[in-house]
Parts: sequence; structure tokens; C-alpha cells
Amino acid sequence: MKTILRQNVPITEPHRQENDAEHSWHLAMMALLLAEHADEAVDVARVVKMLLIHDLVEIDAGDTFIYDVAANQDKEEREQRAADRVFGLLPEDQGRELRGLWDEFEARTTSDARFAHAIDRFQPVLLNVATQGLRWKVHGVTADRVLARNRVVGDASERLWSHLQDLIADMVEQGHLPPGPQ
Amino acid sequence: MKTILRQNVPITEPHRQENDAEHSWHLAMMALLLAEHADEAVDVARVVKMLLIHDLVEIDAGDTFIYDVAANQDKEEREQRAADRVFGLLPEDQGRELRGLWDEFEARTTSDARFAHAIDRFQPVLLNVATQGLRWKVHGVTADRVLARNRVVGDASERLWSHLQDLIADMVEQGHLPPGPQ
Repeated sequence: MKTILRQNVPITEPHRQENDAEHSWHLAMMALLLAEHADEAVDVARVVKMLLIHDLVEIDAGDTFIYDVAANQDKEEREQRAADRVFGLLPEDQGRELRGLWDEFEARTTSDARFAHAIDRFQPVLLNVATQGLRWKVHGVTADRVLARNRVVGDASERLWSHLQDLIADMVEQGHLPPGPQ
Repeated sequence: MKTILRQNVPITEPHRQENDAEHSWHLAMMALLLAEHADEAVDVARVVKMLLIHDLVEIDAGDTFIYDVAANQDKEEREQRAADRVFGLLPEDQGRELRGLWDEFEARTTSDARFAHAIDRFQPVLLNVATQGLRWKVHGVTADRVLARNRVVGDASERLWSHLQDLIADMVEQGHLPPGPQ
């Protein structure tokens, strides 16, 4: 987890990509502080646990960049295989519990999973906003794609989704993010 | 937190020091998986929360190496000042809650805080064991000091303390850690 690099950068060290361990800590902290903005009741402890483990499958499957269409096609299959192996390393009771939480995160059928997803999507936006769209520019991402890919934030929190849209509008206005096809 | 370097290295990248964000994620995961070995009943969700925030004071106070006697003399004062400022940045209710958890962690008067401390001490030992005592060698640390500094593990878990002692004995036997004054 400390070795798997993501497509985003730490705000304080924009010359390097952040890794899954740092990302997971950051998400857990955000969940603790932002849970009060969830539209439905959430169990913060379960959300935190989900976020701490949600990227463990990347130990085998690697990080898949959210705007990489090709890599996202076999992502689910790669991650399911990884989940079988990684959670299978644990004692049976612990493996079953964490696999269940991971399956729940992936399925997004509970309010906890939807809120965990919202946090997972919101964090990279914050990192990009704080670095004037650094990684968006590197990958040629446009505002319409950022909004389309992160619309799920609104499934968990109207407030966070509204704030995210404001941030994107500011980035476009400041010239850090092209709006995309009009 | 992603910028503050500790004296230990990630097992998979021993050429660099790990940072506080990675360390905190690792501790939270360990707490989830090892809580069943606590001697007293612990609230795992509280322990995880404590571990996620326990190093936030290092944003101002920096990391203090556990075997650095001089730096440890004013550590408490530096960290209290940092806690005032860092937790003071939050909305009042959240600041009060997290400051309370951090004070509890520092005071070690509850079973949750004692177990959180045990995990915080156990993780660097595991990183050193997995890298043949790499950072112990760099700092000339001896087994007697490792045991003295980590005895608090036994205040929370006889099993973890016993396992830690076995690991240290193995390291000494394999020549990776000098025993110290006999």
C-alpha cells in the first residue's frame, strides 16, 4: 500500500504521486470530519473501516486511473481476483468480515458505502484544486469529465456535491481546467 | 502528515523513510486485525480513530525519534502547543472531540489508549524485524533499549508483548541487533 502510486499528488509535495496508504489515511480522516454532511444516517466507524481497506485489492490489481477508459474495462475482474487472494490471506473470520465490507463498498447499496465512495471521489478533486489542477492538466482532463465521474458524490451528500461543483466552476473560471465540449 | 518523515522505512521501500500518513494508516489496519489480542475490552472504532489522529501534533512539533533522549525532554511541551493550534483549527465541537481523544491517548489511562499505544510501539519493531534491523543499525540501538522502550506493549496485551520479545530475541540471535550492556 505504501508502494502503490496513485495519479494524484500530496498538496505539500506536488513533485511526487501519493500512495495508497497515504490516500487511505486521508480518506479516513475526511470521513471522520465530514460524516455530518451525509444525507442519510451513516455509521462513521464502518465508513472509516471501509475506507482503510477499500484499496487493499490494488496490492494485486494496481491503481486504475479514473479517467483511463481502457483500464477501467477489466478493472472489476482484476479486483475481484485480488480480493479473493488478499482477503484470503487473513484468518477465516477476519477475511470474511473485511471481504464483506469491501463487497459492500463496491456494490454501493448501503448509505455507508455510498458515503465512503463520495469521500473517495472528493479527495482527488481537493488535491487537484489545491494544486491548480496539476494532475488534470497532465492528463488533459476536462470539467465535463470531472463532473460526470464524480456525480456519485451527490448520491451520498447534496452538500459535498454542491461544494464540489462550486470548486470545479472556480477552477474553470481561473483557467486551470478546460470546460470540455460545449 | 504526508511530508513528516519518521525514523522507520516501509518494508517494500527500505531506501526511504515512511511518513506519518502511511504510519497512521498502517497502525489503524493493525488495530483492526489485532484488537482481539488486547487483554482488556477495547472499542476498536475508538482505537482506530485515536491512531488516525495521534500524530497530527507532529504537523507542528515534528517527529521525535523514540531513542533520542534529548529531543524527548521537551517533546510533551512542544506537542501540547501543537495540539492547541492544530485541533483549534477545527469547528469547536470537532476540535473538542479529537483533542479529548488525543489527550486520552497521551494519558494512557484507558484500555483504548493503552492498546493504541501498544500498536504504535509494535509497528516500528515489525518494520525493523522485516528489514533485518535496518534502522536500529543506523541509530546504534541495542536490544535492551528496544525492550525498555516498548515494555508498554505489555500493559495492553500479554500476547503482543510476548511475541515482541520473541522477535527481539530472534534479531539478537541472527546478529541484527546487539544485546546491549550485559
